[in-house]
Amino acid sequence: MISKLIDKIVNTKAPIVVGLDPKLSFIPERILRESFDEKGRTPAGAAEAFYRFNREIIDSVCDIVPAVKPQIAMYEELGIEGLITFKKTVDYAKEKGLIVIGDIKRGDIGSTSESYAVGHLGAADIEGESFSGFDEDFATVNPYLGTDGVKPFIDVCNRHDKGIFVLVKTSNPSSGEFQDRLIDGRPLYEIVGEQVEKWGASSMDGSYSNVGAVVGATYPEMGKVLRDIMPHAYILVPGYGAQGGRGKDLVGFFDRDGLGAIVNSSRGIIAAWKSEKYSQFADGKVGDAARAAALDMKKDIEDALF
Amino acid sequence: MISKLIDKIVNTKAPIVVGLDPKLSFIPERILRESFDEKGRTPAGAAEAFYRFNREIIDSVCDIVPAVKPQIAMYEELGIEGLITFKKTVDYAKEKGLIVIGDIKRGDIGSTSESYAVGHLGAADIEGESFSGFDEDFATVNPYLGTDGVKPFIDVCNRHDKGIFVLVKTSNPSSGEFQDRLIDGRPLYEIVGEQVEKWGASSMDGSYSNVGAVVGATYPEMGKVLRDIMPHAYILVPGYGAQGGRGKDLVGFFDRDGLGAIVNSSRGIIAAWKSEKYSQFADGKVGDAARAAALDMKKDIEDALF
Repeated sequence: MISKLIDKIVNTKAPIVVGLDPKLSFIPERILRESFDEKGRTPAGAAEAFYRFNREIIDSVCDIVPAVKPQIAMYEELGIEGLITFKKTVDYAKEKGLIVIGDIKRGDIGSTSESYAVGHLGAADIEGESFSGFDEDFATVNPYLGTDGVKPFIDVCNRHDKGIFVLVKTSNPSSGEFQDRLIDGRPLYEIVGEQVEKWGASSMDGSYSNVGAVVGATYPEMGKVLRDIMPHAYILVPGYGAQGGRGKDLVGFFDRDGLGAIVNSSRGIIAAWKSEKYSQFADGKVGDAARAAALDMKKDIEDALF
Repeated sequence: MISKLIDKIVNTKAPIVVGLDPKLSFIPERILRESFDEKGRTPAGAAEAFYRFNREIIDSVCDIVPAVKPQIAMYEELGIEGLITFKKTVDYAKEKGLIVIGDIKRGDIGSTSESYAVGHLGAADIEGESFSGFDEDFATVNPYLGTDGVKPFIDVCNRHDKGIFVLVKTSNPSSGEFQDRLIDGRPLYEIVGEQVEKWGASSMDGSYSNVGAVVGATYPEMGKVLRDIMPHAYILVPGYGAQGGRGKDLVGFFDRDGLGAIVNSSRGIIAAWKSEKYSQFADGKVGDAARAAALDMKKDIEDALF
């Protein structure tokens, strides 16, 4: 699966993933009213608004970016109705030719991790027939439980040609609390990074592995070190834009050929219509603003890399 | 919320939680046939079988145990249909007077963790009205992202009188890979345990905090150390039974008054009807076998503690 993502990155010349993390406050009045009129001021109505909002963004960026990353928490907040929209969003994005990274940060012990992996990347076996659940292309995975929490995801990836990104160093301010603690003189995130490289050996797909890593844009120095520790892991980089990361901070996450990393922006793209910088779209032109913001982000990264 | 759980533990004299982690292979032919006949050999049919199975167990144990712990991964494996059954199971267990611990192991950065917390323990705000999503009483939380991943859960707990159990030392064989690594001479799980105690100070409810910890029965020595490090944290102990933990291993997890810990058993109770020990229920008497196994487990723990 990682080779498919890389092909799309090469074709679009955009190592960018658009984070589909909707909130009601990001959604223009027009979409809210239509959705609430149709389904009520209820979780069903809010979920409908999320879906219409996502569709406008997907339609506007699907030819210029390789991938989207819906953050399942935003949907889970609305319960079942939200999760139905999560699934519809995954399907719609794939229909439009996008790669879908499910930002689910799951992780549990052996057989339980397998259930998550099957539900998100594989297919459940019901009396000999296979049924896929959410069917993303990639999922993010939390490594705190160690190899037997991660391995079932890799097995499912190998069976279904899918991929994962394992949390190594996250973009949030308190990520250092545990991740930066020194073990034999080296921070925990380096130890996790080494494991990612090892785990990845069993799922190579071209020059990179289907086992990638999450490293926050907000920690560029650590990105550089981790790039070297994990030569076969693609790095998913959150934290660009709203969280403070900029193009020039990202150079160390990439390999010399401009591959090796894909940078996520959520709010900076999906809520661009509400920002001062894109005030020409302030009347709710969600899609046009998202496209403009994605193209600006592409240029910012290009300028830094080449 | 922790005081409600403690009241129920005292009343039932059973520091036991039944893990509702269904698999098709645990479900008797009778329930499978009825469910598939009604809803097809599909995720909807499998989810119906999970629900009927769970109901039989809940009906049989609701007067002798304080709580159940559905593992959401098992439901997520079946996609949306499975999650509908997860929600119906939460509701049914609460109707029957049980406390529900959602074993969801979520955790993300700030606002994203808040969405998970709202979806599972709180209520989403839709134009001024509140709608609860899954509405468990407790949820399990992964601490790898540090304080700003955990704090939003605690805030929601405080607003809605709910609780969490934070993963500290998990029961699986490879949990030591990261959790046992030494930081300034002490294992990471102790550092996490100290944080749990600190986090808990902002959510005290009687002698214990609404912020508890997960520590595996398979590591009794560590349980003892962690009991001392986290005097105000209730400990949720997985790994009893099928994973190898026994009553006499559990003493160190408890306080002197027999409080301070609640022990989970999943397969050992819900699939008891399939085991040799309970062969009198082998013709698919799921509920009767679960009750017998729960009573045996209660006695095993009582004998060890008193």
